[in-house]
Amino acid sequence: MNEKSILSLWEKASKKAIEDYLHFLSYPSVSSEKKHESDVKNCVDWLKNYMKTMGLKTELIETAGHPTLLASYEVDPNKPTLLLYGHYDVQPVDPIELWHSPPFSPTIIDGSVFARGAQDNKGQIFYCIQAVKYLLEEEGTLPLNIKFLIEGEEETGSLGLSKILPSIKDSIKADYVVVVDVGIPAKDEPAITLGLRGIITFDINLKGSKNDLHSGMYGGLAYNPNHALVKVLASLRDENGKIAIPNFYDEVEDLTALEREEYDLEFDEKSYLSQTGFPPTGGEEIFSPGERRATRPTLEINGINGGYSGDGFKTVIPKEAHAKISCRLVPNQDPEKIGLLVKNHIQKIVPKGIEVEVDFHEGKGMPVRLTKDSPLAKAFAESYESIFKKKCRYILEGASIPIAAELKNASGGDLLLVGLGLPEDLIHAPNENFSLDRFKKGFCIIAGALFNLASVNKQ
Amino acid sequence: MNEKSILSLWEKASKKAIEDYLHFLSYPSVSSEKKHESDVKNCVDWLKNYMKTMGLKTELIETAGHPTLLASYEVDPNKPTLLLYGHYDVQPVDPIELWHSPPFSPTIIDGSVFARGAQDNKGQIFYCIQAVKYLLEEEGTLPLNIKFLIEGEEETGSLGLSKILPSIKDSIKADYVVVVDVGIPAKDEPAITLGLRGIITFDINLKGSKNDLHSGMYGGLAYNPNHALVKVLASLRDENGKIAIPNFYDEVEDLTALEREEYDLEFDEKSYLSQTGFPPTGGEEIFSPGERRATRPTLEINGINGGYSGDGFKTVIPKEAHAKISCRLVPNQDPEKIGLLVKNHIQKIVPKGIEVEVDFHEGKGMPVRLTKDSPLAKAFAESYESIFKKKCRYILEGASIPIAAELKNASGGDLLLVGLGLPEDLIHAPNENFSLDRFKKGFCIIAGALFNLASVNKQ
Repeated sequence: MNEKSILSLWEKASKKAIEDYLHFLSYPSVSSEKKHESDVKNCVDWLKNYMKTMGLKTELIETAGHPTLLASYEVDPNKPTLLLYGHYDVQPVDPIELWHSPPFSPTIIDGSVFARGAQDNKGQIFYCIQAVKYLLEEEGTLPLNIKFLIEGEEETGSLGLSKILPSIKDSIKADYVVVVDVGIPAKDEPAITLGLRGIITFDINLKGSKNDLHSGMYGGLAYNPNHALVKVLASLRDENGKIAIPNFYDEVEDLTALEREEYDLEFDEKSYLSQTGFPPTGGEEIFSPGERRATRPTLEINGINGGYSGDGFKTVIPKEAHAKISCRLVPNQDPEKIGLLVKNHIQKIVPKGIEVEVDFHEGKGMPVRLTKDSPLAKAFAESYESIFKKKCRYILEGASIPIAAELKNASGGDLLLVGLGLPEDLIHAPNENFSLDRFKKGFCIIAGALFNLASVNKQ
Repeated sequence: MNEKSILSLWEKASKKAIEDYLHFLSYPSVSSEKKHESDVKNCVDWLKNYMKTMGLKTELIETAGHPTLLASYEVDPNKPTLLLYGHYDVQPVDPIELWHSPPFSPTIIDGSVFARGAQDNKGQIFYCIQAVKYLLEEEGTLPLNIKFLIEGEEETGSLGLSKILPSIKDSIKADYVVVVDVGIPAKDEPAITLGLRGIITFDINLKGSKNDLHSGMYGGLAYNPNHALVKVLASLRDENGKIAIPNFYDEVEDLTALEREEYDLEFDEKSYLSQTGFPPTGGEEIFSPGERRATRPTLEINGINGGYSGDGFKTVIPKEAHAKISCRLVPNQDPEKIGLLVKNHIQKIVPKGIEVEVDFHEGKGMPVRLTKDSPLAKAFAESYESIFKKKCRYILEGASIPIAAELKNASGGDLLLVGLGLPEDLIHAPNENFSLDRFKKGFCIIAGALFNLASVNKQ
């Protein structure tokens, strides 16, 4: 099917597709909030039925948390299989008072849909579903076998799906895995994502005296856990922004000259300044901002607290102090190994008289780095280019999607990350929105990519 | 009046004195809480009337906050004048659920009165009032002129009184000023307090990006204010517990050999361990714990916070981070000068791209160091010794009472700090209490000291 036919398919589809999209958005499927438990279930039940009506074989896979929907359409066992991953759960809506329209009453303003999940990820996975739906209606078949894996806990770390992945290996077996949950650099810049950073997160808990103490009566005697905390935390990075934990960089693969050509490491400092209001002074000084944002590991203190933080003052030496830390990892760093290095280092430098605990969170993720020369990347790049009429960029994402590497391993398929998100979509924030123009582009890109991928495989 | 007569005076006084003490305690005079504004006023009105009935000339001195009660009795303008300082306001009672009896329904259990303010400071100032009341009833006069200055904002930093002190210099003119708001090392250890540390407190506020940022997408680009904060804070002390701010120790007077003999620098490590559960590893390593707890300055982080501190995890680079710091000072450090040194140092080491504000709080206090060889110290030491039948110790307090040095300056009198507090009185905490045995001892010590002080002046 060529570009023209795909565009005319969209013309036929658009009215009903958008109507169904708005209905999908009306379910408050907030996975992290107990009060929305039945909304989450109603949402996935509706979606399962919807995809069954499309002619797909559907199955709800139970996990320790919210279920995952598997919906598949087999054309021919000898044809390749593409697994599309997305999620039907959404972020909480607070602070609700900052929304201009109710988050679960989707509202179209100036060609954009405002609703929680409008982009992340209901909008993105739904244009994929629509492409498959209307291809099936139009042609009665698909160019290759399709599996949708749509989970209900991405916003809480995909823990349920992650645990059962090994047990559903056969059901999700695929030649290609595409995670449709990322974005493009700007609205007129087509791009596919060839990398993710890995992640490990942990709490550092320091304990001193068994009670809070008066800082006049005990100051100079008691070792203050706040001081131990800043000593420990300050030791984690050096003056030049390098992480100062011994052996932290041992497994980091420097970019090859080829990779430097392959990946788009451009950095738009002007846009960054207008977003943040201050220059990119964080990270390792010897690398450029473009390298630092996705090809170098990080260690960030995401939270720190100890003692009194209210109005005025309290002359207290607190009994404990805490920090929350995340490390973003790059190939070939392993989250488990890095966790051990950090823990050993911290235990070594904690002062006498202070107890330390380092507690790792669930949801560790391996870094991902892909090549643009795979049939999968080529099929999608070509489709982006034909819709955008512009050369596709090959970008690396600084954030992490822990389930991506796990899906690749469990399905056995080649991996790619695609999507049409933009920073101004305000995902995770009030007034999340997604433009109908990008919904349409998504529909067309997915449809085109299915044909491209099928034809690559024929060659 | 000798010890025996004083004890018999207590026998006459005790029933009614304790009854009135319990009534005084029943006013919820919490100075920091708006809802108790009328309770604070009712408390001081009752006390004013009570002291007027005793025969004292009373006056409510208005301040920007709660009023201060001045109550005086002039025997003879040629006799010396003793000013006794205390406060009628109390700390809040939260967490209320941990009280075994209601904090404003004083309850006597095993010879101790349980109530908010039982010791701090209603109990301590009230045994002084009772000593004066019954001396007047018994003898129709006093051995010297007495002024009581009883304020209503000690628990919120004495800011109102501090500001008006210069304007009431004439009314509070005195030869001796005794602050009755400190304690003794143990219930059978008489002691007077010859030193206080000074204090200055401030907030450090660091600002980075104009919004919170995602630590995956911006990690390695944005300078995280939490990292700037730990860098700044870790730089404030060195490996050996010494404060690392240039010139911080310039004005610190080392203890002379004489002072080392004069002050009781004993440190009970066993008792400290049982109170805190960990050894005294804080402070400057080259000094003994006894020296560190009161003769050396400190810098303590009383509060630190930035980013996410709730359950689980949030991958945020916060837009700001904060700390609350206090420095305890020793002679001859000046809070204003020290504040400038700290501010300059912090401004110098804040990383590029991070804005810093250092905001000083009101309530700065000068350090106090007194000698045991003054007539005032001798008069009180003798009285403690005669009641306890034991040698009086001369101790230094690590905490601060900013109003003490200011009272000394404004009144022109020689200063001393006395009291009968113990750590187990649980001041500022649930179940505050004060033993009636110490209330009685306080009554006797004050009565005795008035005679001693009058007779020292006759010699």
